[in-house]
Amino acid sequence: MGTIVIKFGGSSLSTTDKIKNAAKRIIAEKENGKNVVVVVSAMGKTTDQLLTLAGEITDRPAKREMDMLLATGEQVSISLLSMALTEMGAQAVSLTGWQAGIITEKVHNNARIVDVRTDHIEEILKDGKIIVAAGFQGVTEDGEITTLGRGGSDTTAVALAAALKAERCSICTDVTGVFTSDPRSVPKARKLASISYDEMLELANLGAGVLHPRAVEFAKNHSVSLEVRSSIEDEEGTVIEEEASMEKNLIVRGVAFEDNITRMTVFGLKNEITGLPSVFSTLAANQIDVDIIIQSQTDSNQTNLSFSIKDKDRQEAVDVLEKEKEAIGFDHIECETGLSKVSIVGSGMVSNPGVAAKMFAVLADNGIQSKMVSTSEIKVSVLVDSVHMKPAAQHLHDAFELGVLEETAAK
Amino acid sequence: MGTIVIKFGGSSLSTTDKIKNAAKRIIAEKENGKNVVVVVSAMGKTTDQLLTLAGEITDRPAKREMDMLLATGEQVSISLLSMALTEMGAQAVSLTGWQAGIITEKVHNNARIVDVRTDHIEEILKDGKIIVAAGFQGVTEDGEITTLGRGGSDTTAVALAAALKAERCSICTDVTGVFTSDPRSVPKARKLASISYDEMLELANLGAGVLHPRAVEFAKNHSVSLEVRSSIEDEEGTVIEEEASMEKNLIVRGVAFEDNITRMTVFGLKNEITGLPSVFSTLAANQIDVDIIIQSQTDSNQTNLSFSIKDKDRQEAVDVLEKEKEAIGFDHIECETGLSKVSIVGSGMVSNPGVAAKMFAVLADNGIQSKMVSTSEIKVSVLVDSVHMKPAAQHLHDAFELGVLEETAAK
Repeated sequence: MGTIVIKFGGSSLSTTDKIKNAAKRIIAEKENGKNVVVVVSAMGKTTDQLLTLAGEITDRPAKREMDMLLATGEQVSISLLSMALTEMGAQAVSLTGWQAGIITEKVHNNARIVDVRTDHIEEILKDGKIIVAAGFQGVTEDGEITTLGRGGSDTTAVALAAALKAERCSICTDVTGVFTSDPRSVPKARKLASISYDEMLELANLGAGVLHPRAVEFAKNHSVSLEVRSSIEDEEGTVIEEEASMEKNLIVRGVAFEDNITRMTVFGLKNEITGLPSVFSTLAANQIDVDIIIQSQTDSNQTNLSFSIKDKDRQEAVDVLEKEKEAIGFDHIECETGLSKVSIVGSGMVSNPGVAAKMFAVLADNGIQSKMVSTSEIKVSVLVDSVHMKPAAQHLHDAFELGVLEETAAK
Repeated sequence: MGTIVIKFGGSSLSTTDKIKNAAKRIIAEKENGKNVVVVVSAMGKTTDQLLTLAGEITDRPAKREMDMLLATGEQVSISLLSMALTEMGAQAVSLTGWQAGIITEKVHNNARIVDVRTDHIEEILKDGKIIVAAGFQGVTEDGEITTLGRGGSDTTAVALAAALKAERCSICTDVTGVFTSDPRSVPKARKLASISYDEMLELANLGAGVLHPRAVEFAKNHSVSLEVRSSIEDEEGTVIEEEASMEKNLIVRGVAFEDNITRMTVFGLKNEITGLPSVFSTLAANQIDVDIIIQSQTDSNQTNLSFSIKDKDRQEAVDVLEKEKEAIGFDHIECETGLSKVSIVGSGMVSNPGVAAKMFAVLADNGIQSKMVSTSEIKVSVLVDSVHMKPAAQHLHDAFELGVLEETAAK
């Protein structure tokens, strides 16, 4: 019997009525004769409420204790969803992360899954029962509760799908699929029927928000057939697969953007050879993700190092670097906030030079200054002032004709 | 280094400010040079909020899923209290029931602790850290989360104290100790300096509410030195020990009462020999506690069976008995609700006949009818109409001179 994994996000479970709706959809899948494993996030605003409670107690909660606190969110959802399924006549068993065999590395707040032990799940599936597993959370080998970071429920779903060799992993969310850009800011954005793992990975990393990047990476590495679809409406979603079958000749597939970016500059690195790695290893040791990196030398042969990070990591980044100031050897740190990243993504870029040049021309024509640039084979990202973020996205969406393709593709 | 166990109930942790207060008290104990293990309940109304959510989904939630849901309550408290302790400069580690090694039988909603595996706790205590363990919850040998029933956090605290051979187990609550009766209803009630396990066991069973009966039983069986005291004020509490050292010559030590009692009568038991055990084994199999039992025979040689249960169990009791009607063999069931139980307790009763007679006389003199009676060596309980509960308690408290003893004992 084939197995499918279905994931419901927090906004699809924010009330008990929505939980009942999710239960209906799950039962419909079960009636198709499949083994069904459901993965859920915490209900709606639960995580924020828990963060508020912690904030009333301390500004700097221990990471271990934050995991302990946040892990309760999904435990509430899994039990309520199991109750709803049982009430509708199905047989359901809820499992926490540790009960579902989600083993992670020993890192708090942002752990990676290192193993999925499916014995217990497979035993329950054999009895014909639906499994409702807690996303976002796992356990270390020595029994410590960990969490996978925001959006980690997607990763749990894909990891379970890979471990169970599931036919499909459906991510049910509050959008109907993956769009060429965010429709709330770019009205001409349209839904893609399919997209490749690599393109989705860039879009996910670039803040498109529908799928957690780790989940896409995991899906790519384990060839999990992934689908993004609405948790409510029945329409077809977007399939993420090795080679997006349609519209292959498109150069750019999507425009992504993300705000709350800080550009941090470390001035006067004393030793260029040891200084660079020690800055980034210090940040990595504190789980601070660095995105774009630029190294420059001034006339006086001073080495400066600029990089972009998320606003929320700014304070911690400054603290940990200042703490290591002696060891790293630098003069001082400056930060520029109020920045956003705008990116174009498409696997067609590899064989189409001049895409980046066109992007810079579009921005310049519209009076938008780019403050940092980063490129890969399938994407180009620029940092701009946050006021320019949405206009930049709209101009790029128009210039690469992402909106008009719907009609041509449909005909 | 000596170990002490301190338990905080939900009302002592209902806000983040109260959690900070609890942290202060815990740090004071730690500074006395003790190993400190803290056991906590869910914050204030958390359990009720979770029950409301479940109620929106189903009237009859699966017991397993209720345990999964309710166990999140203490997990929130332990993480927040650990954060508060860390914020105040202490080192603290929170542990869920399963992480604290609380092993229970495989029963949901009302499990008994069968083992406490202290290896992990002892390792953490060796590092000088404070442990904050979740009360009320445990885990079965095969990894299912269970709960111990309302008030089960007391049991967790005593079980940990016994397993760790703690010097003392302090139950911090919103009263300052064990009283001769409930001061809210019996104004002359006074605090007892000490009381025996057996007396406390009767008082706990009889609804005095300050301590869970199982916790007292556990403490008695493992000779755990137990103390009930205020979570806020510094005054001495009540010590529960093998032989209450003071006031030994008192016949009655306390008056307890409890409302929301149902008297259920099974009419026309076909077979007296097999019928009786099958009624009570059916109820026990469904975790329904039966209190007072009366068996009677009518003129026509029909056997009727009356017993008292809690109102909340009434519907389930009727359902499970009706389901087994054929097998048990009876005519019909009737229920009388709106009843309360009033009890007098005191180990001096053993050697003082006539206490029950005096109790009945006091009730009769005040026009209060007793509907069912139950006696043990150290207590007498009667069922009365709920309107008579508090007056009965006051009259008995006066008649046995429980209030006036304070002055004489103090002099």
